[in-house]
Amino acid sequence: MKSDLKGLEAKGKAVKAASYRMAYLSTEVKNRALHNIADDLLARKDEILEANQIDYKEAEASGMNAAMLDRLLLSSSRLDTIAQDVLAVAELPDPVGEVFDMRTLPNGLQIGKKRVPLGVIGAIYESRPNVTVDISTLCLKSGNAIMLRGGKEAIHSNSALAKVVQEAATRAGVPDGAVQFIENADRALVDKILGMRDYIDLIIPRGGAGLINMVNENATMPVLSGGIGVCHTYVDKSADIEKAVAIAFNAKVQRPTVCNALDTLLVHDDIAERYLPLVAAEWAKAGVEMHCDKRAMTILKSNASLKLMPSVDEDWGKEFLSLVAAIKVVDSLDEALEHIEHCGSGHSEAIITEEYQVAMRFLNEVDAACVYVNASTRFTDGGQFGLGAEVGISTQKLHARGPLGLKELTSYKWIIFGSGQVRP
Amino acid sequence: MKSDLKGLEAKGKAVKAASYRMAYLSTEVKNRALHNIADDLLARKDEILEANQIDYKEAEASGMNAAMLDRLLLSSSRLDTIAQDVLAVAELPDPVGEVFDMRTLPNGLQIGKKRVPLGVIGAIYESRPNVTVDISTLCLKSGNAIMLRGGKEAIHSNSALAKVVQEAATRAGVPDGAVQFIENADRALVDKILGMRDYIDLIIPRGGAGLINMVNENATMPVLSGGIGVCHTYVDKSADIEKAVAIAFNAKVQRPTVCNALDTLLVHDDIAERYLPLVAAEWAKAGVEMHCDKRAMTILKSNASLKLMPSVDEDWGKEFLSLVAAIKVVDSLDEALEHIEHCGSGHSEAIITEEYQVAMRFLNEVDAACVYVNASTRFTDGGQFGLGAEVGISTQKLHARGPLGLKELTSYKWIIFGSGQVRP
Repeated sequence: MKSDLKGLEAKGKAVKAASYRMAYLSTEVKNRALHNIADDLLARKDEILEANQIDYKEAEASGMNAAMLDRLLLSSSRLDTIAQDVLAVAELPDPVGEVFDMRTLPNGLQIGKKRVPLGVIGAIYESRPNVTVDISTLCLKSGNAIMLRGGKEAIHSNSALAKVVQEAATRAGVPDGAVQFIENADRALVDKILGMRDYIDLIIPRGGAGLINMVNENATMPVLSGGIGVCHTYVDKSADIEKAVAIAFNAKVQRPTVCNALDTLLVHDDIAERYLPLVAAEWAKAGVEMHCDKRAMTILKSNASLKLMPSVDEDWGKEFLSLVAAIKVVDSLDEALEHIEHCGSGHSEAIITEEYQVAMRFLNEVDAACVYVNASTRFTDGGQFGLGAEVGISTQKLHARGPLGLKELTSYKWIIFGSGQVRP
Repeated sequence: MKSDLKGLEAKGKAVKAASYRMAYLSTEVKNRALHNIADDLLARKDEILEANQIDYKEAEASGMNAAMLDRLLLSSSRLDTIAQDVLAVAELPDPVGEVFDMRTLPNGLQIGKKRVPLGVIGAIYESRPNVTVDISTLCLKSGNAIMLRGGKEAIHSNSALAKVVQEAATRAGVPDGAVQFIENADRALVDKILGMRDYIDLIIPRGGAGLINMVNENATMPVLSGGIGVCHTYVDKSADIEKAVAIAFNAKVQRPTVCNALDTLLVHDDIAERYLPLVAAEWAKAGVEMHCDKRAMTILKSNASLKLMPSVDEDWGKEFLSLVAAIKVVDSLDEALEHIEHCGSGHSEAIITEEYQVAMRFLNEVDAACVYVNASTRFTDGGQFGLGAEVGISTQKLHARGPLGLKELTSYKWIIFGSGQVRP
């Protein structure tokens, strides 16, 4: 253990040193690295799948549940998909090197900003071994060096994948040490990593709420983490009912297990009697369980085919991540805004309305990463927003908010071209 | 104390609630608040100066040194200056509300970003009471609510100034509670503030290294702090000697006590014998003490009028904040880059050269907030860079780097205009 901590210190130094070289690596070298990784993932399938089988059997023996086992499992076709994803990142424009906000000051200084990588990104993640490749390729493309620490349960798979990434990247001309992988699964090493603010510029946790909270509480460097998504859709009295049914259905049902799915439906009292029976009937066909406040229950209870429950206090502000929705009837836009202010998590919020002033008030007054008029919150996604690859979705306000693409893995430096200027 | 902690919780809730209203306050109301503050600072001079005298006399009696006493002191003319600074912020463009990166996706969704305030900014600062007004006006102009906690030694002055700010802002239509001031000087309250991540979006510490480190270590929310500035100027063999003398002189002497002043002069061996005697003679006239490595010492020691000392290891990477400079002779641009990589603090670095390739390598390879060619590092400043007011200078990479203006006190939200779109 002691020697592992020492080894970690050495890895920290090495990755920091490599990061300075990474910062001005050419796009050509970075893309060649990604192509090499994709090639090697295919060429070295046997080796990777063998390592994955060790993890899988151990996990199976330890009684891991089926869903988790499925996340852990790699297969030939899953490796094909991972390799395709790597090539897709190679196709994206290189964010590094862009010069912007350039101008000439009255004293003749030419001053502007140049986009640069953040430096060293630490990734701490769980179960799915594809994250090893996913995060590595996003970091490489954006010029960042990386320190990877995957979960204990996938250690053989992650180790095999990291080896492929390291060798393929080095062959392309990426500096030695730019991709570090921590083989020791001891929790004490995670604490040590979270204390390495001299070597790591940013930590990205990927996994469940437990992991994310632990990282946020213990990291000494900045953390970029997706928060929970408690998403509201508010159907105003001025809503087009057909749109409102289609959007609420899509937001709840299209993929209920993700952070941008609908959790609470807020409905204006003036439209509730016409609207709620229609959306509830559609939701019922998809198996949605509805937690209704008193007024919603009064409207819906006559339909015996619906899965209804009276709402409890805990339903408001809850991320269901399943086919459950809370329903509340409100008296005004103001009441809806207030509910969202208190119960929202700042992720994605939508209004359905045909009134211009109502739409604009909602857009202005709701404080969330993504605010929608007449569209499904399910669109909150880097791919859907046209960012290409997605690192995650941020609900924090500093640095970047909402879907995070390659550009959000960069910073800038001021560059100043002078001709002998001194400050008067 | 217990009731103060409870009071703090109430203030946290109030400031958070006010921040939602602040987010869409009109520019007109915000500017009116700033004009009111400027007016009241002048109209209520007696009251403010009386409070300041209480602090001053207590500080004097407790044996505070002259420099600190001077920082603490307010006078009629200093209040005039503070009021003028407030009016200057009112003149700056409002960063909030800007819509940018707007585009239409293939499915017809119109999507873009809208600039919004960060929310609640906590300011923890020491001694200079003008910070109370300074930070308040910058936050108000950028639409942020604020929680202020000044130093114990200026408690009466800060309290009087905060009262002026609060009353002037409220009279203009700023929501009640948007400016909170913590009267209790107990250190336990600072710890409590640093734990209030539900209410405070960002902490800005202003003061010495002790305060800044304490805040960075204990804050549970993001911190925006200026780091130390260890600034190098590298004089390449291709330098124009006249420019190199003028720039190094300006960078060291024009204001030696600040973070963007020169600390270490690196000189290429090929030019050292011609250059060093000239710059050293100029520096000597201004009283600069020079800590020389062996080669620099050999070149300079014959001039008895210079204040020379042999350099020690601690001189490299030291922020002198005084009329002291370290001098090192290097064999190459590579050696200079390596020295800066190891000893720089990522603040401001400069090269003096007439060779294009050398300039471009320095710009590309140095990892710092501001990288200069042929200009003095003293320009690193929000005012000099044309940002108007300056909140500080950031040496971190996340969110914002270098001089921080009003825009750096904002975030954005994604706004999406739909017409019924659902995700396929």
